[in-house]
Amino acid sequence: MKTLTVNLGDRSYPIYVGDGILGRLGEFLQRAGLRGKVVVVTNPTVARLYLDPVNEILARAGFASVSVLVPDGEEHKNLDSLAMIYDHLVRARLERKSSVVALGGGVVGDLAGFAAATYLRGLPYVQVPTTLLAQVDSSVGGKTGVNHREGKNLIGAFYQPRLVLIDVHMLDTLPRRELVAGLAEVIKYGIIEDAELFHVLEDKIERLIHLDRELLIRVIATSCAIKARVVEQDEREDDYRAVLNFGHTLGHALEAATGYSEFLHGEAVGVGIAKATAISARQGFCDRRSLERIRGLIEKAGLPADLPKSVTVENLIQGLEVDKKSTGGKIKFVMCAGIGKTRFHSLSPAEILASLDS
Amino acid sequence: MKTLTVNLGDRSYPIYVGDGILGRLGEFLQRAGLRGKVVVVTNPTVARLYLDPVNEILARAGFASVSVLVPDGEEHKNLDSLAMIYDHLVRARLERKSSVVALGGGVVGDLAGFAAATYLRGLPYVQVPTTLLAQVDSSVGGKTGVNHREGKNLIGAFYQPRLVLIDVHMLDTLPRRELVAGLAEVIKYGIIEDAELFHVLEDKIERLIHLDRELLIRVIATSCAIKARVVEQDEREDDYRAVLNFGHTLGHALEAATGYSEFLHGEAVGVGIAKATAISARQGFCDRRSLERIRGLIEKAGLPADLPKSVTVENLIQGLEVDKKSTGGKIKFVMCAGIGKTRFHSLSPAEILASLDS
Repeated sequence: MKTLTVNLGDRSYPIYVGDGILGRLGEFLQRAGLRGKVVVVTNPTVARLYLDPVNEILARAGFASVSVLVPDGEEHKNLDSLAMIYDHLVRARLERKSSVVALGGGVVGDLAGFAAATYLRGLPYVQVPTTLLAQVDSSVGGKTGVNHREGKNLIGAFYQPRLVLIDVHMLDTLPRRELVAGLAEVIKYGIIEDAELFHVLEDKIERLIHLDRELLIRVIATSCAIKARVVEQDEREDDYRAVLNFGHTLGHALEAATGYSEFLHGEAVGVGIAKATAISARQGFCDRRSLERIRGLIEKAGLPADLPKSVTVENLIQGLEVDKKSTGGKIKFVMCAGIGKTRFHSLSPAEILASLDS
Repeated sequence: MKTLTVNLGDRSYPIYVGDGILGRLGEFLQRAGLRGKVVVVTNPTVARLYLDPVNEILARAGFASVSVLVPDGEEHKNLDSLAMIYDHLVRARLERKSSVVALGGGVVGDLAGFAAATYLRGLPYVQVPTTLLAQVDSSVGGKTGVNHREGKNLIGAFYQPRLVLIDVHMLDTLPRRELVAGLAEVIKYGIIEDAELFHVLEDKIERLIHLDRELLIRVIATSCAIKARVVEQDEREDDYRAVLNFGHTLGHALEAATGYSEFLHGEAVGVGIAKATAISARQGFCDRRSLERIRGLIEKAGLPADLPKSVTVENLIQGLEVDKKSTGGKIKFVMCAGIGKTRFHSLSPAEILASLDS
């Protein structure tokens, strides 16, 4: 098992990455100083696989747990599901020392984290991500929230968990499509910060897809360490944290244009990475060879790299216009400046789309 | 004009207290580094009186403003009103440098503050409280949130404003019943922290009710300074901030038992203060003379000091049981230990009610 730390002063917390460590959840909660009631937020699919063992693990460590099931899927990451979670938290008579465990993927983690951030003005919460995407991205860094009809994650809070438990053994039950989607974020870390990680992926991505445990632990821990270092520098995304949005500006617009139903988040990010790199090359930030390697790795991972024919540039513009990161109508676009390097560059939605179109 | 500061490191902010200072709102916003769009959240009553002037003041200082009207009354401080505010923020195409101005009483301030805390994971906001209660209490200290059917303020966040503008001139348009309700919080500050303030109130409460401007500025600034000192010590209510809940445990339970419709918050707190002092005397914390003076001042202010006949002890229990401050089933009850002094004492809801009943 690898243990990392996200260093944020009195909001610091550990990330445990290992194979078969779910059984230590109760011990980790105790070590974090948590006690009393635990509300486990999960979805029906994950509940079927892991809720009974999790309840048993918690009970053995002296925690009384109740569970809340939220429906699966990005379209349920909204205020209605949040209101439903609040109702359960009220019914469970949670107190300020109680805690929330998010057991699931990004939707569960974002919803449960935001509920924890805002119930009784803030309860401790713990992330137990069960998808690769949540393990390498959404479970770390404290971004919580829900979508608005008009845009993703428009409502939310920065609120750090007390610990993150990542058990690669849980990826055995993850559908292959979701595993591959998660690789988009791992590839992103290589592109923005770590040419060595990118090279490992080029070399061994098939072994990852075939769930090589040792390699998974190494790649996930490296990804989490990169994210932790970025978040430590700029927790509230005043500045540098926006680098993590590489590939996401277009990815989010694509998800919005397709009603959050056609693409998994990671798949949309795959397209977003390929397109953002193409724009970076066209604008003179990125060399040809890096562009080819990036597109090559996206395809080798089995991720989509192109916009579907059904989506036009016009369909994307509304998603770009409500982008949270926009200032004065311009978007702080993350350019790839070769593998392992980035530059910020302000572009209007129209400039982004023109660059995409040509 | 008096200027106070709430010292919270990089979240510090000024409180301006003066007579006729609303016209300087734009200047204060600029001084706080705010720019661009402003969304003014208010209610129909306040809008009729102050929205046009406020928009004009903002325009003169170069701010483009739009407004959102939320319905008046505690029963509208809920997730539905919040969702409505989010819709307006989306429609206004707010960006991260945009700001929210809460123009109104506690309901508007709590709603607008929570919307600001959670839209785009946090926008700057400014409090312009128009009721005495909001001026001395809810606008200062960063408690934001909404009610749940089962209890007040169960959903919310600690999120500090960028500045608070308190114009005592605006109290001219406040109904007398609401002015008197606000005095309950002022009396509370005297009881918990400042025997001198309590004495001033005993001496001059009629002059306050008749809107003596100089006295209002002095008493409001003293109240805000007390609150600021408490919040500086314990922003997130881990410990000492709970002292501000003196009179509120029973006050909240009374509001809940009467469906938030019979009593204004300050009136319920008036009853809560009288009853909490009686419990304090009965439990040996408070001397007879202080009890008499406190009850006397509540009555002199024109506030209710007794439970209405329609409310039984049984009606109060549910409100006490979902109290946010409870731990292990016990409530951290604030006892008056003589005027200007308090003690915390853990009591179960049953013990509180038994002490009330006898």
